[in-house]
Amino acid sequence: MSTSQAYGAPHPTLIKVNPFEPAEKQAGLMNRWHPDIPPVVTVQPGEVFKIECHEWTGGQVHNTDNADDIAEVDLTKIHNLSGPIRVETAQPGDALLVEILDVTPFPEMPWGYSGVFELNNGGGLFSKEFETRAAKAIWDFEGVYASSRHIPGVRFAGISHPGLIGTAPSAELLATWNEREQKVIDAHPGCVPAVALPPESVGAYVGQDLPDELRQKIYAEGARTIPGREHGGNCDIKNLSKGSKCYFPVFVEGANLSVGDLHFSQGDGELSFCGAIEMAGIITFKCSVIKDGIEKFALKQPIFIPSPVDPLYANQIVFEGISVDLHGDGTQHSMDATVAYKQAALNCMAYLKKLGYTREQAHLLLTAAPIEAHVAALVDVPNACVTIGLPTAIFDRSILPTPEGLEKREYGQAAIRSDGLRGKDPN
Amino acid sequence: MSTSQAYGAPHPTLIKVNPFEPAEKQAGLMNRWHPDIPPVVTVQPGEVFKIECHEWTGGQVHNTDNADDIAEVDLTKIHNLSGPIRVETAQPGDALLVEILDVTPFPEMPWGYSGVFELNNGGGLFSKEFETRAAKAIWDFEGVYASSRHIPGVRFAGISHPGLIGTAPSAELLATWNEREQKVIDAHPGCVPAVALPPESVGAYVGQDLPDELRQKIYAEGARTIPGREHGGNCDIKNLSKGSKCYFPVFVEGANLSVGDLHFSQGDGELSFCGAIEMAGIITFKCSVIKDGIEKFALKQPIFIPSPVDPLYANQIVFEGISVDLHGDGTQHSMDATVAYKQAALNCMAYLKKLGYTREQAHLLLTAAPIEAHVAALVDVPNACVTIGLPTAIFDRSILPTPEGLEKREYGQAAIRSDGLRGKDPN
Amino acid sequence: MSTSQAYGAPHPTLIKVNPFEPAEKQAGLMNRWHPDIPPVVTVQPGEVFKIECHEWTGGQVHNTDNADDIAEVDLTKIHNLSGPIRVETAQPGDALLVEILDVTPFPEMPWGYSGVFELNNGGGLFSKEFETRAAKAIWDFEGVYASSRHIPGVRFAGISHPGLIGTAPSAELLATWNEREQKVIDAHPGCVPAVALPPESVGAYVGQDLPDELRQKIYAEGARTIPGREHGGNCDIKNLSKGSKCYFPVFVEGANLSVGDLHFSQGDGELSFCGAIEMAGIITFKCSVIKDGIEKFALKQPIFIPSPVDPLYANQIVFEGISVDLHGDGTQHSMDATVAYKQAALNCMAYLKKLGYTREQAHLLLTAAPIEAHVAALVDVPNACVTIGLPTAIFDRSILPTPEGLEKREYGQAAIRSDGLRGKDPN
Amino acid sequence: MSTSQAYGAPHPTLIKVNPFEPAEKQAGLMNRWHPDIPPVVTVQPGEVFKIECHEWTGGQVHNTDNADDIAEVDLTKIHNLSGPIRVETAQPGDALLVEILDVTPFPEMPWGYSGVFELNNGGGLFSKEFETRAAKAIWDFEGVYASSRHIPGVRFAGISHPGLIGTAPSAELLATWNEREQKVIDAHPGCVPAVALPPESVGAYVGQDLPDELRQKIYAEGARTIPGREHGGNCDIKNLSKGSKCYFPVFVEGANLSVGDLHFSQGDGELSFCGAIEMAGIITFKCSVIKDGIEKFALKQPIFIPSPVDPLYANQIVFEGISVDLHGDGTQHSMDATVAYKQAALNCMAYLKKLGYTREQAHLLLTAAPIEAHVAALVDVPNACVTIGLPTAIFDRSILPTPEGLEKREYGQAAIRSDGLRGKDPN
Repeated sequence: MSTSQAYGAPHPTLIKVNPFEPAEKQAGLMNRWHPDIPPVVTVQPGEVFKIECHEWTGGQVHNTDNADDIAEVDLTKIHNLSGPIRVETAQPGDALLVEILDVTPFPEMPWGYSGVFELNNGGGLFSKEFETRAAKAIWDFEGVYASSRHIPGVRFAGISHPGLIGTAPSAELLATWNEREQKVIDAHPGCVPAVALPPESVGAYVGQDLPDELRQKIYAEGARTIPGREHGGNCDIKNLSKGSKCYFPVFVEGANLSVGDLHFSQGDGELSFCGAIEMAGIITFKCSVIKDGIEKFALKQPIFIPSPVDPLYANQIVFEGISVDLHGDGTQHSMDATVAYKQAALNCMAYLKKLGYTREQAHLLLTAAPIEAHVAALVDVPNACVTIGLPTAIFDRSILPTPEGLEKREYGQAAIRSDGLRGKDPN
Repeated sequence: MSTSQAYGAPHPTLIKVNPFEPAEKQAGLMNRWHPDIPPVVTVQPGEVFKIECHEWTGGQVHNTDNADDIAEVDLTKIHNLSGPIRVETAQPGDALLVEILDVTPFPEMPWGYSGVFELNNGGGLFSKEFETRAAKAIWDFEGVYASSRHIPGVRFAGISHPGLIGTAPSAELLATWNEREQKVIDAHPGCVPAVALPPESVGAYVGQDLPDELRQKIYAEGARTIPGREHGGNCDIKNLSKGSKCYFPVFVEGANLSVGDLHFSQGDGELSFCGAIEMAGIITFKCSVIKDGIEKFALKQPIFIPSPVDPLYANQIVFEGISVDLHGDGTQHSMDATVAYKQAALNCMAYLKKLGYTREQAHLLLTAAPIEAHVAALVDVPNACVTIGLPTAIFDRSILPTPEGLEKREYGQAAIRSDGLRGKDPN
Repeated sequence: MSTSQAYGAPHPTLIKVNPFEPAEKQAGLMNRWHPDIPPVVTVQPGEVFKIECHEWTGGQVHNTDNADDIAEVDLTKIHNLSGPIRVETAQPGDALLVEILDVTPFPEMPWGYSGVFELNNGGGLFSKEFETRAAKAIWDFEGVYASSRHIPGVRFAGISHPGLIGTAPSAELLATWNEREQKVIDAHPGCVPAVALPPESVGAYVGQDLPDELRQKIYAEGARTIPGREHGGNCDIKNLSKGSKCYFPVFVEGANLSVGDLHFSQGDGELSFCGAIEMAGIITFKCSVIKDGIEKFALKQPIFIPSPVDPLYANQIVFEGISVDLHGDGTQHSMDATVAYKQAALNCMAYLKKLGYTREQAHLLLTAAPIEAHVAALVDVPNACVTIGLPTAIFDRSILPTPEGLEKREYGQAAIRSDGLRGKDPN
Repeated sequence: MSTSQAYGAPHPTLIKVNPFEPAEKQAGLMNRWHPDIPPVVTVQPGEVFKIECHEWTGGQVHNTDNADDIAEVDLTKIHNLSGPIRVETAQPGDALLVEILDVTPFPEMPWGYSGVFELNNGGGLFSKEFETRAAKAIWDFEGVYASSRHIPGVRFAGISHPGLIGTAPSAELLATWNEREQKVIDAHPGCVPAVALPPESVGAYVGQDLPDELRQKIYAEGARTIPGREHGGNCDIKNLSKGSKCYFPVFVEGANLSVGDLHFSQGDGELSFCGAIEMAGIITFKCSVIKDGIEKFALKQPIFIPSPVDPLYANQIVFEGISVDLHGDGTQHSMDATVAYKQAALNCMAYLKKLGYTREQAHLLLTAAPIEAHVAALVDVPNACVTIGLPTAIFDRSILPTPEGLEKREYGQAAIRSDGLRGKDPN
C-alpha cells in the first residue's frame, strides 16, 4: 500500500468500553494509581487515537426520576479510568504534551447526570450545612447543548473535559502521597466525610491479567483516585476541555497516562461532589514528548493552554462571598477562600430560589452549569473574597435584577429519594 | 434658562482631591466605617457625578527607583476614602444600584505603583515564605495601557476599578463586625502580620468639621477599612470595573456610599498585599434606589453585572495548584483553596523566572496584571484545586512552551530598598 | 413500554448517506429547489434527529496530492442536498425555527478539502486576476481542529456549519427566482464564469421514486442551488454554525427543509469558490414552528442567533481594502464593497507571501480559515472600505509585524495540477 | 533637574482646540490633503502626546431637539483635521506605527450626535430609497456609555476611534488620486449625491500662516477628505479604536500624520453618512518608525492590530441580506456586496420597527451602535451575502424572537426638522 492510500484513515480506538455494562468486568479499566500497573496500549508521539471511558461510577447511576441510585453508590468502586497508555520515548523528567482533541458522549447514550451525595456516603462541600440527602438531575444532550427535565428553564453548551487525567506516579512519589495523606487522616480521626482516603484493596480493580502477587501489591499500595495531585489526576478543571493542550510531568518510563471521569459540563468548584454532568464517552488524544520538560518549564504540576472553543458566556450576574459564615452562625474565618467560595455560592442559590428553583435544583445547577468562580482577593485580613459569576444566557428568560424584583416561577423539583427525604434548607 | 439650554452640561465633580498633597488634610476624605459620619454631599437618583479619590496611602509613595517609601508606609493612615455620599430616598432594606461609569487616573498624574510590603509592616500572602522586603514597580499609564520600567517586556490594558467601595454600616452591623473580628484576633494572639485589625483611633481621619465628642466616638468605634464585608468595602474585585453595575445593601438612611483605593489594574487575588496598580484618580457614578432590594434579591452581600469593556485576554497559560505545599515542606492541607491558590501562583512565578524575571518582578507582575484565578474544584478530598491563567498577549514576545524550552532574557530588577536588602527566594 | 423506559434513547438518523459512494445513486438526496419535490421524511416539532449529508460534489474529490479532480469536477451535479424534511404543522406564513444542534464529519472519514476552480469551470472571485488553475488543500480533522499537509504551519478549530440550508419555495416564489435571474443572465451574454445559472435538467437529481412527468417538471423548472435566496439556501455563512438557531420563512405546507454542503470551517467571503473546508458529515436538528412568524418578525430572509461555541480568535491582524483596484490597474470604483473586499484579501495574501506561503496556499488558507471580513464603511464616496481580520493564533509562530520585518519560511506548495500548470501571480 | 524628577510628567497636548468655537478660525486645523502643507508640530518616536480635535463639521451641529442644523450643514467645510504632525526620522518607504492610546470626548462637552443627511446635501446609503430628510440623535456620554433621549431603550459602551487618520500623500500620489477620481466623476455626470468630489478651493482651510501662493496651490489641488485612500484617511473603521496599533505607509519626509472626525461609537458600514456618534475630543498617540516598512509588510494600505478593550457584545441577532432588492422592486444584482449590505440593514430596520422604533430611529441606531456587518459569501452567483449582527445587550429588554412575536413599545421619535418634513418610509 502506498503512503497516499493511507490518507484519511479513521483514528483508531485503542481502548473500548461498553457504557451499558458495569465497569468492573471490562478490560483496559482500572481505579488506583500505582507505578507497577502495566500499560494496556502503547502509542507513538504524534499519533491521533481515541479512548473510550466509562462514567465515574462505572454504571451505578441510571436515567430515572428518583435518586435512590445516588444514595446507594458504592464509592470504593470509583473512578474507572481507561489506561494506562504508554507513550514511546517518554522518560522520567520529560514533559508529556497531551492534546485533548475531542471529548464526546457515546452517540448511543446521549445523557449524563449530576448528583448530590449524602453526608455518610461521600458528602460534599455543603453536606453539613444542608444535611444533604441524595438528589439527582438527568441531563439530556442535544448536540452541543445539555438540558434537564429536573431543572426546567435552563440550557447550556457543554465545556466537555476529562475530570480525571494524569500520568503514573513513580514508586517514590506514590510513597510521598500515601505518607502525607495519612498524616491528614490521622489529624482528623473519625471525621465524616473523611478528610482523605488511604489505600484500600476493597473495590480495587485493574482490568488486566496480572500475577496475583502484583495485583495484591497494587491493591494494597495504590493511591486512591479522588484527589488531584502533582501528576494531574482528578483535578476537575472545567477549562481543561476539548481543544486544550496540557503539559504533564513524567515520572515513569512511557508516562503511563490514564483518563476517565468525563464531564459534559461543569461549574468552577464542582460544588456538589458529583457535580459535573457525569458521562461515559470518547476522548481523542495526540501525545508528544518534550525532553527534560520538568526542568524546562519548572513543572511541579501540569500547566495547560485552554481551548479556543470553550463556550462564551460573557454576560453574568456576579455574587460576592467573604470568609464570614453569613448564611450560618456568622463566624469570622481568617483568609479562608473555601469559606468565601461557599458564601458566594449560597448567595447565588438564594437568588435562584427567588426565581423559583428549589434548593436541590439550585445546588445541582451550580455544579453543572459553566459558572465562573474567581479568587478575587486574598489580601485584606481577615476576609478572603471569592466571586461566582452566573451566566445569564443559559436561562430561557431574563434573570437580571429589576426594580420590581424577580419573577418566581414553578419549576417542579429535582429527582430526589423515592421516600421523599430531603435535607435541611438553611436559607 | 430653558431646559434645552441645560443639554450637554458637564458632569459635576462633587468631591475634589489634590493627589500631590497628603490625604490627611483634605476635606471630604475619611478612613473608618461608622454610621455617624455625616455625608459630605447628597445626590439625586439618576444624577451623573464625579468623585475624585486619593491613592490608598494618601500620598506616601513616590515615583522613584527604590522601595524605601514602601518600607516606611504608615498603615494606620489608610485607606483614604472619598465620602460619604448620601443618595436621596435610600432607606435601610433598599438596594443601592451604583453604576460605575468610568474610572480614570488624573491626567496630570499618569502613573501608579504596586508594592511588596515587609512582614512586620502589612506583609502579604507570601510574606512568610519569601521573608519579604520592600519592593516596588512604578507603572506608567499611556492611555488604556500600563507598562513599567521596573518590569520590562510587558504591557497591558487596564481593567480600572475601585478597590474599595461600600455603603455605611448601621450601628448594629458595626457592632457585629467589631465583635466577630475581635474573636479572631483573640484566637491568634501576637500573630504577625495580624489576622485582623481592631478599631484604632491613631491615624483615624474624617475630613469634616465635627463635634469633638462625635469625632472621638467615630475614631474609637469605627471599623477599619482593610477587609471587605457585607456592605462591599475593600473587596478588591478586579471585575467591578468601569462599566459595571453593582447592587449594594443599604443599612442607613441615604446609603452613605464611600469609595477609594482606585486601581488601574489588578490580578485576581491581589497577591502582594498592595498588589494592584494603585492610583489616585476620578470615578464617575450614577446611583439609583430599589425599594426593599435586600429582600427582592436576597442580598446578603453586593451582587454586580460586569462591564462589556473589560479587556479581552483570552489566550492564557494556566497553572494548576493543589492544597499541598509543594514549594515548601510538602505539607498536605485539607481542602484549603488559599493554599491551592498560593501553589498555582508559585508555579507561575517559577515559570516567569525561567523567562528571566526576578522573584520580585514576578511577584509584582502577578499582582498587577489581569491574571485570572479560578476555583477549579473544591470537591476532591483532600485537595482543593485552583488555577491561575497568565495572559500571553501582555508580553512583547511569545512565552508559550516550546520543545527547546524558554528563552531567558535579562530584565533587570524591580525597585528594591536602597540598602539592597531582599527577602528569601524559596524557588 | 413505560415513558421512563424511553429515557435516554439515541437520536434517530432519518436520512443515511454513504460518503464513499457517489451521491447520484443514493436515496434521500436531491440537487434542485422545487415545491413539488415530495418530502422524504416527516418530523414532529421538538424532535431531535440526525441527517447525514454528502459533500457538495457528491464524491468527485479525493484525498490526494494533486488537483486534477478539482479541474474535472462536473458542476451540473452539485449540490447534493439531503431532504426535503417535512415539519408537522408548518404552514406558509409561519417561521420555521431550526436549531442546528451539531455538525460533525463522519468518524470514518476525518478529512475534507478546499479547492480553487478554473476560470472555465466555476471560477471564483479571483479567477480572472489570477487566471486560476486548479489547486487543492486536503484538511485532516483531529477532533476540533483542522490542519493540512498542503499548507504547513497553521491549525485552527472548526466553526462547522451547513453551507446550504433552506426551506422549499412556493411555485410563485420559484417563478420569481427564475425570472429575475434570467434577466441578469440576459444582461451579461456569454460571460465566463456565468453571472447566474438557469434551470438545467442535465445533472438534475431527485433520489426518490417519482412519476416521470413530475420528475421532468422538477428538472426543467427547478432552481439551481448555487445562490442563497429568500429561503436561505446556499448562503455560506460561517456563523450559522453548530449551536445556532435559525428562523426561516415557510413557503409550502410542511416547510420542506433541505440541507447539505457541510463545512468544517470557512472564512468570511469564501473567496475561492469552493473555499470552505468541504466535508461529508452528520447534522443534528430540532425544529419548531412559530405561527405567522413571517409577519411577526418581518421575515423577508432568515435571521439567526449565533452559537456560544464559535471559536474565539480575538487576536487578529486586520487588512484594509478600498474600492480602488490597487493590485491591478488602479481603477477607481464607486462604493463597491466587493472590490474593497478583494483588495483587503489581496493585501492579506501579499502579507502571507512575505511569510513564505505561495499564492495558491494563501488563496486556499483565506477561504478555509475563520477570517473575519467586516463592511467597515459604505459612506465615504467613492470608496467603500472593507477589512479582513486574519487570526494570529492559528499559526504556529508569531506573525505580527516586527521592526526587522517578517521571517520567510519554506512551506512547499498546495496540491496543484499534475501537469504543473499554475495561474498568473499578479502580486 | 535630575532624570528621576522627570518621572510621571503629564503627556503634553500638542494641538489645542476649542470645541465651542467654529473650527474655521482655529490654528492647527486643516481640511485638505496636500504634500505641501507644513507640519504644525514635530514629535520624537516613542513620545506620548495628545492632540485635540474638533468634531467633523467644526461646530455646525448643536445639542437641540430638531434637525434643522443637520439640514443646513455646509459640507465644503468638513472635515476639520488636526495636523500635520511630523515624526522625526520617518522617510518615504517607511511604515509609521501609530499607537492610538486613548480617544475621549472633552470632559466639558459630554455629548455627540448622529445625523441623517438630505439627498441634495450629502445624502447617504439610503438617501434615495428613503428620500431622506434631515434627522438627528443627540447622544449623552456617561463614562464608557452613550444613550440618547431621541432613541429610548438603548445604551451601549463606546468603541471610540478616529474616523479619519492618515499620512500625507506625496505629490505623485495626490495626482493619482485626483486623476482616478475625476474619471469616476466624469463617468457619472450630474449624479446626486455626487459619486466623488474633486478638489474645491471654496471652504478649504489650513490654520497656519502660509504664503498666499502656497495656500492657493493647496486649496486648488488638495484632495478632499471624504474617502479613505492608500494612506488611511476617512476609513471610518470602528475597530481602529483606542488601544489599537496601526501601520501606515509613509509618502513624505516626516510622515505628516493628520487626524480628526472622532467617533464615540459607530456601527459597521456607518450607514447614515454621518452615522457614527460624532464628537469633539482628545486623542493620545505614540508613534514609531519602521524603516522600509512598505516593502517589509507589502503595505499598499494600512494594516492594524485591534484593541483588547473593544466592547464585547457577543450576543446578537443576525440578519441576512443578498444582492436582490427585496425591499424595493426585486431587481437581481450580480454579486454586489453593497446591495447585500443594504438588504441586511433593511431587514434589521424592519425588525426594529416591530419593536416600536420609527424608521428615523432605526436608521440612526444602526449607524451609531456597534453592529457587526460581515461579508459572509462572495461566491455564489449571482448573490453576494452580507450579514448584520445586532447586539442584544444594548437594549433594556429582551429583543429575541418569541413565539408570541415582538412587543411593540412607544419610543417617540428622533429629532427631525422643525417643519416636520420626513422622507418616505418604504417598509
